[in-house]
Amino acid sequence: MSRFFSAKYNTLTPYTPGEQPRDQQYIKLNTNESPFPPSPLAQQRAQEEAAMLQLYSDPTCVSLTSAAAKALGVAADEILFSNGSDEVLNFAFMAFCDADTPAIFPDITYGFYKVFAQLNGIPYEQIPLKEDFTIDLRDYAARNATIFIANPNAPTGLYLSLDKIEQIVKNNPCSVVVIDEAYIDFGGESAIPLTKKYDNLLVVQTFSKSRSMAGARLGFAVGCKNLIQDLNTIKYSTNPYNVNRMTMAAGVGALEDVDYFRGNCRAIMDNRSWTTSELAKLGFTTLPSLTNFVFTKNEAISGKEFYLKLKSKGILVRHFDIPRLTDYVRVTIGSAEQMAAFIRTTKEILEEMK
Amino acid sequence: MSRFFSAKYNTLTPYTPGEQPRDQQYIKLNTNESPFPPSPLAQQRAQEEAAMLQLYSDPTCVSLTSAAAKALGVAADEILFSNGSDEVLNFAFMAFCDADTPAIFPDITYGFYKVFAQLNGIPYEQIPLKEDFTIDLRDYAARNATIFIANPNAPTGLYLSLDKIEQIVKNNPCSVVVIDEAYIDFGGESAIPLTKKYDNLLVVQTFSKSRSMAGARLGFAVGCKNLIQDLNTIKYSTNPYNVNRMTMAAGVGALEDVDYFRGNCRAIMDNRSWTTSELAKLGFTTLPSLTNFVFTKNEAISGKEFYLKLKSKGILVRHFDIPRLTDYVRVTIGSAEQMAAFIRTTKEILEEMK
Repeated sequence: MSRFFSAKYNTLTPYTPGEQPRDQQYIKLNTNESPFPPSPLAQQRAQEEAAMLQLYSDPTCVSLTSAAAKALGVAADEILFSNGSDEVLNFAFMAFCDADTPAIFPDITYGFYKVFAQLNGIPYEQIPLKEDFTIDLRDYAARNATIFIANPNAPTGLYLSLDKIEQIVKNNPCSVVVIDEAYIDFGGESAIPLTKKYDNLLVVQTFSKSRSMAGARLGFAVGCKNLIQDLNTIKYSTNPYNVNRMTMAAGVGALEDVDYFRGNCRAIMDNRSWTTSELAKLGFTTLPSLTNFVFTKNEAISGKEFYLKLKSKGILVRHFDIPRLTDYVRVTIGSAEQMAAFIRTTKEILEEMK
Repeated sequence: MSRFFSAKYNTLTPYTPGEQPRDQQYIKLNTNESPFPPSPLAQQRAQEEAAMLQLYSDPTCVSLTSAAAKALGVAADEILFSNGSDEVLNFAFMAFCDADTPAIFPDITYGFYKVFAQLNGIPYEQIPLKEDFTIDLRDYAARNATIFIANPNAPTGLYLSLDKIEQIVKNNPCSVVVIDEAYIDFGGESAIPLTKKYDNLLVVQTFSKSRSMAGARLGFAVGCKNLIQDLNTIKYSTNPYNVNRMTMAAGVGALEDVDYFRGNCRAIMDNRSWTTSELAKLGFTTLPSLTNFVFTKNEAISGKEFYLKLKSKGILVRHFDIPRLTDYVRVTIGSAEQMAAFIRTTKEILEEMK
């Protein structure tokens, strides 16, 4: 820290990204990336754009918002694109929370919500999930607070059905409810259609997972025109050209290539079923997941030990050293080959412990 | 505005980007873009990376910081890369200003400084430039404030010599001095070497202008390790993966292709000389510029009228409707062909007025 750093950040603890190893070849099942490359159409569009980088990108992202509006069945002015969904989540904390409007979110969820609140000096409350990691709807009724819910949740993978989401939105007409749907394409039903009905609902999605574009940085929010306008006020006051030309072009390509997108989502869901049933055979308890990862534990081995042994054998998964989560590891669902290697290695590890 | 938008932004006026026309072919001399495509090496590297977008980008930007460290003669931990230099400027406002440490900057300078201050609720003071648009050094001595100076300045193009920059840094040992060098490669001398001597100096640069990468979004800050660490604390609390893979790869390519970079800077400086002397022949007064634009006026035509007539003839320049600037237009220096067209059209306009 320098002697100039503002005291308001004295207690700020930044987010810790998952390991991104550069020195060794791992089977990387730790950061919920897709095992599949981006759509060939997305790649081609990005490559074409590389020759035009001398010109600024379009701050209104018109090509992308038009394509997304068509794909999602909403109007173009009901969408805002950003440099990854983290950016749009931060914009939402800035726009819809302050000293008088705290943020609330489950105690176990995406770790960045707490950081965004701290960064922006926003009071926040972490509401404990029930013992089985599900949400108690009574905790989210008539709160004078902006509500952030990841659906499906991370790192549990648990999905809250759309009627329950609607109940939360309906029960908080004076508060914005932000539904973070980073993992919605792997079996869940999106709340986007509800944005037509509720002016207090903001849905956030990302191209990082189901569209294989984590390294391109592209996320977006969908909500009523006025909510999107507020986010745009923040965007135009921080970084109007936040989405670069190549990512914008790739995003349009990814949206057009519907078959590729659907095929990849199906493959991940198939691999998830197979992995879950193989894990069950090995004595693991796995939470029912509608994401591209599974959260799993086995009484025969602690979460930390399992993580470390997998790592020593060239497979990276994620372990959270937090009391309620410490028994578990989170395993990204990769390709069929990757999951076969993961199960094979897990068998080895359990054998060695006998 | 929605009914949920935080009252703290009631008076926030977002930045207005220059026109980005989509509907017509203009000779675009309005947003200080390069007329040259990015280096072929930069293009190639970006294109290769498009096939790997399923993986997150490296939050530490190690390939890019290593290449930049080598090119700039500083250590890797003295550099921070960001999604355009606007982002790193915003980080600097966040990190080094607060209610007790206001921001100060000239009244005529990059219009975004004021927006960053407003966005972050930071008190700020705009210090009038002298009548000739130069800085009075006495205004920047022993201030208890974070100082932002664009050098060369925009939209005037005027350059403050390095010994004067050093004097400001030396005269404010208890404040951070941010030198925004977006246009430094067109004839100025960078303050980067001074960062070795002063722990209160932060230098910000961009790949948008001299490296033809405005549409890729890449900027960076150079300063002592502790200042960079503070900016990293902000980055890891907002958007750790802020630079995408393609832009990162293109940036490394652009840094390696030194000849291409130097050749383009020389061409812009040559075209600037030619344009300035042609404008003089037509009765224009042009401020001495060390940037890729010129700020020019002619008693025969108002700034606004000149801008509008050029636009009607297919040439976009920028006009600022601000009392001290209203006589002028800002003209980006493009290719030799573009500048010939600009001078030809300017002659036509002056002829028509006779």
